[in-house]
Amino acid sequence: MCFERLAQQLQFILEIDKLKQVLRQTVLLADKRRENDAEHSWHLAIMAVILAEYATVEVDLMQVLKMLLVHDIVEIDAGDTFAYDTAAHKDKVEREMLAANRLFNLLPAEQAKDLRAAWDEFEARQTPEACYAAALDRLQPMLLNFHGDGSAWVKHAISKEQVLSYNSHMAAGAPALWDYAKTLVEEAVIRGYLKE
Amino acid sequence: MCFERLAQQLQFILEIDKLKQVLRQTVLLADKRRENDAEHSWHLAIMAVILAEYATVEVDLMQVLKMLLVHDIVEIDAGDTFAYDTAAHKDKVEREMLAANRLFNLLPAEQAKDLRAAWDEFEARQTPEACYAAALDRLQPMLLNFHGDGSAWVKHAISKEQVLSYNSHMAAGAPALWDYAKTLVEEAVIRGYLKE
Repeated sequence: MCFERLAQQLQFILEIDKLKQVLRQTVLLADKRRENDAEHSWHLAIMAVILAEYATVEVDLMQVLKMLLVHDIVEIDAGDTFAYDTAAHKDKVEREMLAANRLFNLLPAEQAKDLRAAWDEFEARQTPEACYAAALDRLQPMLLNFHGDGSAWVKHAISKEQVLSYNSHMAAGAPALWDYAKTLVEEAVIRGYLKE
Repeated sequence: MCFERLAQQLQFILEIDKLKQVLRQTVLLADKRRENDAEHSWHLAIMAVILAEYATVEVDLMQVLKMLLVHDIVEIDAGDTFAYDTAAHKDKVEREMLAANRLFNLLPAEQAKDLRAAWDEFEARQTPEACYAAALDRLQPMLLNFHGDGSAWVKHAISKEQVLSYNSHMAAGAPALWDYAKTLVEEAVIRGYLKE
């Protein structure tokens, strides 16, 4: 039996084990340790299933999940860029593009193309699926920050203005979730988690 | 604006943050720390997308993903039961059933029913989707053990016979993956990761 194609697929699968070691600024609710990208991606995927009714139009959920499962794997090479670190955002696109070229190409050609297309779609945020996926990617850390006593917001002295401006594209993918998120932001200011 | 239904959905979403703290026996390839259930579930979901061609029949990938995303959440209450701990397996079903009743019912009724049905389907292993999902659930720790110098196998002095017998149902969901897994087991014996 020849496992050449499978071996190539497994090379990718083993390589992305490293996503479990890319730490984010967000911390877990229970013990405040920093969340990693693999956990975050799982959380977003299950959120996508549960919150699909809030997408602007009926979305292709399978495509949303595909995007969410791979959306952060470029951070294996490029590292996590904190939302509010404007300096690091300058070369983020270039770093992530190089990472995408290396990682997706570990797969057999047609699978590399398919998952790379999903990643590109997520990044471009032009389809309802990508906009919905991106809205979840913004909602999840807001939820963890809010319910974790402000955690990363407090640590980095983030302002209400920064959160509203950085996350406002949520409105395009899931308007009701954005309306809800804005109520969290208001309450976060009252509780002292965010600067006015 | 009324967010009653959303608030209920978010209660579940926040509760399952705890899955990130349920540790498995498997360790990560890079730094040998124990993997948690959330990371494991993410890894399985992306594997499901990439390895779908090895399922016995063409599967409903969306249903496979739904199962994989929730298959371990009962361990938030019931804890992780190590594959080769036969004593702990005795009351596993009862512990997990209670957990499923509590956790899924945090959701609005029709979503609770839908995700509970996915979990039941995974547990029953009677559909091609469930068999394929279950095969991945067995393959992933075998890959991490094998490529991690035997890690959990060596630590718990596991034998070739135990691995073959515990994982043999992989043949029902993804025969080629099971054929491949058996070659890993043979090689693991040669390398001294598994007892003969």
